[in-house]
Amino acid sequence: MTEPADTKSPKGFLFSVAEAAVKKPGRKDIALIVSEVDANMAGTFTTNTVKAAPVRICMLNIKSGRGRAIVVNSGNANACTGTQGLKDAGEIASHISHHLGVKSSLSYVCSTGVIGTPLPMSRITPALDILIENAGNYSFIDVAKAIMTTDTFPKITSQEVKIGKKTGVIAGICKGAGMIQPNMATMLCFIITDIAVERKALQTLLNDSVKRSFNRITIDGDMSTNDTVLLMANGMIGNKPITAKSGYTKAFKSALDKVTYELARLVVKDGEGATKLIEVFVKGAGNETHAEKAAFAVANSNLVKTAIYGNDANWGRIMCALGYSGVPFREDKTDIFFNGTKVVSGGISNNKDKEATGILKSKEIKITVDLHSGKYSASVLTCDLTEDYIRINAEYRT
Amino acid sequence: MTEPADTKSPKGFLFSVAEAAVKKPGRKDIALIVSEVDANMAGTFTTNTVKAAPVRICMLNIKSGRGRAIVVNSGNANACTGTQGLKDAGEIASHISHHLGVKSSLSYVCSTGVIGTPLPMSRITPALDILIENAGNYSFIDVAKAIMTTDTFPKITSQEVKIGKKTGVIAGICKGAGMIQPNMATMLCFIITDIAVERKALQTLLNDSVKRSFNRITIDGDMSTNDTVLLMANGMIGNKPITAKSGYTKAFKSALDKVTYELARLVVKDGEGATKLIEVFVKGAGNETHAEKAAFAVANSNLVKTAIYGNDANWGRIMCALGYSGVPFREDKTDIFFNGTKVVSGGISNNKDKEATGILKSKEIKITVDLHSGKYSASVLTCDLTEDYIRINAEYRT
Repeated sequence: MTEPADTKSPKGFLFSVAEAAVKKPGRKDIALIVSEVDANMAGTFTTNTVKAAPVRICMLNIKSGRGRAIVVNSGNANACTGTQGLKDAGEIASHISHHLGVKSSLSYVCSTGVIGTPLPMSRITPALDILIENAGNYSFIDVAKAIMTTDTFPKITSQEVKIGKKTGVIAGICKGAGMIQPNMATMLCFIITDIAVERKALQTLLNDSVKRSFNRITIDGDMSTNDTVLLMANGMIGNKPITAKSGYTKAFKSALDKVTYELARLVVKDGEGATKLIEVFVKGAGNETHAEKAAFAVANSNLVKTAIYGNDANWGRIMCALGYSGVPFREDKTDIFFNGTKVVSGGISNNKDKEATGILKSKEIKITVDLHSGKYSASVLTCDLTEDYIRINAEYRT
Repeated sequence: MTEPADTKSPKGFLFSVAEAAVKKPGRKDIALIVSEVDANMAGTFTTNTVKAAPVRICMLNIKSGRGRAIVVNSGNANACTGTQGLKDAGEIASHISHHLGVKSSLSYVCSTGVIGTPLPMSRITPALDILIENAGNYSFIDVAKAIMTTDTFPKITSQEVKIGKKTGVIAGICKGAGMIQPNMATMLCFIITDIAVERKALQTLLNDSVKRSFNRITIDGDMSTNDTVLLMANGMIGNKPITAKSGYTKAFKSALDKVTYELARLVVKDGEGATKLIEVFVKGAGNETHAEKAAFAVANSNLVKTAIYGNDANWGRIMCALGYSGVPFREDKTDIFFNGTKVVSGGISNNKDKEATGILKSKEIKITVDLHSGKYSASVLTCDLTEDYIRINAEYRT
């Protein structure tokens, strides 16, 4: 995969990566993002009852709405590790904060990888010193690479925002691949900006943005223990902080939404074993919740996903998934389209299966379902389900 | 696969199979079960909003609690076929009833196979005459074979029940393989008995039995449009009809439960592409609903199912699934066992992963989760998720 060449970087952030041999040696698997000044922070976290130790630490720190650094490792999720896990995550945050000369609560710690094994602290602690030492010698995409697990390419994007005569940047990276599921962030996503945003507004803007991006994607319906989205705004361009009602709120929001949607799209595109990106667009629903629920039922159906993998326009499986979604609808009013070709009209076949089979050979498929029972819609992104998904997940720890 | 040799047959039932080339020629794909006398009938049906035409006909007929014949085809589900589908299903029932000289509503019609294509009535109608002509020339297992789609072996079982000095038989067949999911029957299951059971009691006994058998299995989390369980009791042994409070109710119930559980187990064992049967047993739950919900979350997790396929004792994925099940529980109180070997104690690793990996090589795996927060339990049967599942479902219609 080629690297996105046009990624802009916001002012006042330093990056660093190092090798801690968390799972095995041979790659940079720990990374640091540090702002030159204390920043406002917002975050959203997994809603799984089983939360990894670093998630619990982040949820505690985010209450202050302030932060200076994010340290993140791949190879080990530090989840289901009990008291030891909390102690380890806390130590990592303290270690970084101590070096930076800031309060411990200003460092955020994130982990991704295998569940249930304690972190190898004897290798992580020295790596933290190396991270600090090299801060500024790496770029944001190096961090994106260091946090990859089964990802096949680093995920990064950015947007410029004009704030009066100043120009700010919002840049984001994330990792995904498996265990991506509604009602949560993605696995790990870090967004940084040099635009000043008031704390409460920052959190509201992030919540809204995540709702229609990371919370509208699904790969295997499994919800991770570690999912975290962190947003840091260090205000280095010197604008008057954006509030809920500023003149520039709309411009900031629009750019932030583009960043989160693009990252969410990249996560699905790189779904484990995926060969196709699928958008399930449900319209004509009685309300947005119904539209979303129906879209998720279709997007999470193993039978729909394998049919699309096999270029089979088996729309019966879509009707079937709608039928068990719990959403009230009339079968005989429902239309289904593949990339604009109507295959189902009023609940029955349009005899376009052959044409649709051709359409399914493309890399991006849009399934549109029109329930004709209201004016609300929702779109969910997913990918096909392939033998490679099985292989990746059957052999993940070996 | 060898046929079960010891299946007993209840008195007064005739069987017949024929070739209607529903999907393609070359196999017996339509079958008839007919009782020599009118029988009491009970039934449970899919809860999918999208119900196939034959399901709607059966749901109408079952209100009388009476029946004489069941006709069933494989190769085409007659689902999402609109008014035409209802007309076709109705015609099949009428045709059989006319031949038998009984009311149309006494014939039940079932279909399984591809969704969205009208039945080939020009081939089915003549096959119905052949079915009637040959009634009695075939056995129950021939019917079990005729209703197979992606099943790899026919599913049949029976139980004898002593009712005073008389001995009755409950025998059942079913088909399954894919689209097996909670809150419904299985794809198609037909149970016949020569024991007389009062109509209302028969329905209650069936509901109870299905609740802990077919409604506690899952293969891919997809819920079919056609699932039907029909139970016919023709009373040919001449016992005094069993009611809710008879002395023999318990014996009948116990035998019926054995039949439904065994058929449900066979369905999971023959799950599409499955190499292993997995029982997820959740105990120590605050109530039975919680136990069931937690067990289903684990049993439906693609990540758990692929790990077990790969002989990977990745219990973190089980904790993770419990965490998003929506069931309240304490991570630090939870124990997990694989076939009796404790791998998780109070939410953290017992360092038995290597031993557990050996255990996972067996063909039947029992995952026990003890939540230690109550005295209720539930067991859900599922199977592993393999490359073959993908292959079967990507190529199903080709």
